[in-house]
Amino acid sequence: MKKTLRDIGEDALIARITRGFPTGGALLCGPGDDCAVVDAGKGRPYRLLKTDAIVEGVHFLPKTPAVKVGWKAVARVISDFAAMGGRPEHLLVTVAVDAARPVAWMDGLYRGIRDCLETHGGLLAGGETSRLPSGALISVAGEGRVAQKDLVLRSGGKPGDFIAVTGRLGGSIHGKHLTFTPRVEEAAWLVTHLRPSAMMDLSDGLAKDLPRLATASGCGFEIDPSWLPRNRGCDLAAALGDGEDYELLLTVPERNWNRAAASWSAAFPALPLTAIGRLTEQGDGMTLSGGWDHFR
Amino acid sequence: MKKTLRDIGEDALIARITRGFPTGGALLCGPGDDCAVVDAGKGRPYRLLKTDAIVEGVHFLPKTPAVKVGWKAVARVISDFAAMGGRPEHLLVTVAVDAARPVAWMDGLYRGIRDCLETHGGLLAGGETSRLPSGALISVAGEGRVAQKDLVLRSGGKPGDFIAVTGRLGGSIHGKHLTFTPRVEEAAWLVTHLRPSAMMDLSDGLAKDLPRLATASGCGFEIDPSWLPRNRGCDLAAALGDGEDYELLLTVPERNWNRAAASWSAAFPALPLTAIGRLTEQGDGMTLSGGWDHFR
Repeated sequence: MKKTLRDIGEDALIARITRGFPTGGALLCGPGDDCAVVDAGKGRPYRLLKTDAIVEGVHFLPKTPAVKVGWKAVARVISDFAAMGGRPEHLLVTVAVDAARPVAWMDGLYRGIRDCLETHGGLLAGGETSRLPSGALISVAGEGRVAQKDLVLRSGGKPGDFIAVTGRLGGSIHGKHLTFTPRVEEAAWLVTHLRPSAMMDLSDGLAKDLPRLATASGCGFEIDPSWLPRNRGCDLAAALGDGEDYELLLTVPERNWNRAAASWSAAFPALPLTAIGRLTEQGDGMTLSGGWDHFR
Repeated sequence: MKKTLRDIGEDALIARITRGFPTGGALLCGPGDDCAVVDAGKGRPYRLLKTDAIVEGVHFLPKTPAVKVGWKAVARVISDFAAMGGRPEHLLVTVAVDAARPVAWMDGLYRGIRDCLETHGGLLAGGETSRLPSGALISVAGEGRVAQKDLVLRSGGKPGDFIAVTGRLGGSIHGKHLTFTPRVEEAAWLVTHLRPSAMMDLSDGLAKDLPRLATASGCGFEIDPSWLPRNRGCDLAAALGDGEDYELLLTVPERNWNRAAASWSAAFPALPLTAIGRLTEQGDGMTLSGGWDHFR
């Protein structure tokens, strides 16, 4: 029988398709992190490149208000720029929808896109419309920037570094996944004050994303599940596995944490920053199960 | 009754959704040309940004070999960079497919993507996979570059300029639309030797695309249909309206044409470059009908 994507799952698929693509030149970081990183020349901010798509029936429902769909499509990409310590610059929006879609739906979609860009920065530089036989897909691609000294990859964590998360986890499906705040200002504060060794945004759930960060850093990890900041009504499984939290997951050298973590709450009084464990040597630590796989 | 996208068509939709998006700063050219253009600083090449999607059942068929789908997805974007006088640099590929899709299909898709990048330049910098309830969509976004002096927009044409096309038009559906050569080298020759006043690539058919170029340039146009270079088996309606030619449409000041057009055939002996008419004053000239609209 022919193997399908459902059989191998998303991580194995990505490993398979990115094999054998050359990097080099100005491309400092290719597939595998939240964004690709391009060297724009001595003393200039790095350029961050990202593309991300949301699909009707997967990431939103036919009845979801279009304005929220537009917000979500853009906010997800901005969240990825923030995850590297950066900010959005120029975005391209591709909308593929059925021809019977009301014009008013498109108006709402673009109102949401505009709202998100006005709130969090970035300009719409172009895009495309195409027809889908049915349903809707919105793909947002574009470039962000980050000062060279502020770039944070997934791969810089070291054994002993504290593992921390912003906000609270779980239950995003009840609404937050459509209206969340990409953590741009929080990331800017973190790269200035805590100098994280590694960072990413939580999109597929901590149980899926923390192992990705640890593996990219060549580490294991250990967390105390009782420390996990959970949203109201969420048990541990929900906090670990629901996904779409769009919070920041970061690792911080102990010295940096002890020096500066206490000043977080003065900057962001409404949002917790919580240490939940530590990176360990590779092969030590624990495993987690759960989280979101697109093809399973 | 609610108005749908089918009622208003693609051009009116794009005009509607791009209204009210601010430009400025480094963004020299936003929605409306083949690519967006970003000023990367004094003396540096301009950065070109583009996104483009192809959809199963619209741009290719379920039975189309995946390797050709991958080639087409990337070649379309490279064709847009060429249309501004530029070349590809870093591309991001989003693949949204059903979970029952064979892994071998994905392997073929990425073989086509790799082939096209190796042939025409550009690096895969990242991407994303997502699930569609059914079918497949491949979105390619990324950045290209063009020397400042070589940038050609759609909007620079002047009344009296010659209108020309590379290659032959029509009948792409019989195979060329999956295997075409994006005109990167041809564009590089043209911007050096003919200094076009305006250029774009032909994706929706000359009948649709020439009026777009003329309008962007504030001109009308007049062509002699008998001069149109047609592919074998194509009548005039096919050459005007089939679309997916992926040839270059350009306008050239008469003086430049007379000085240099004769040397084209030494550089590209297998490919015609044909003058088909002239730009006119706005309001003069002729109209054309036909061409491809996604939503009609």
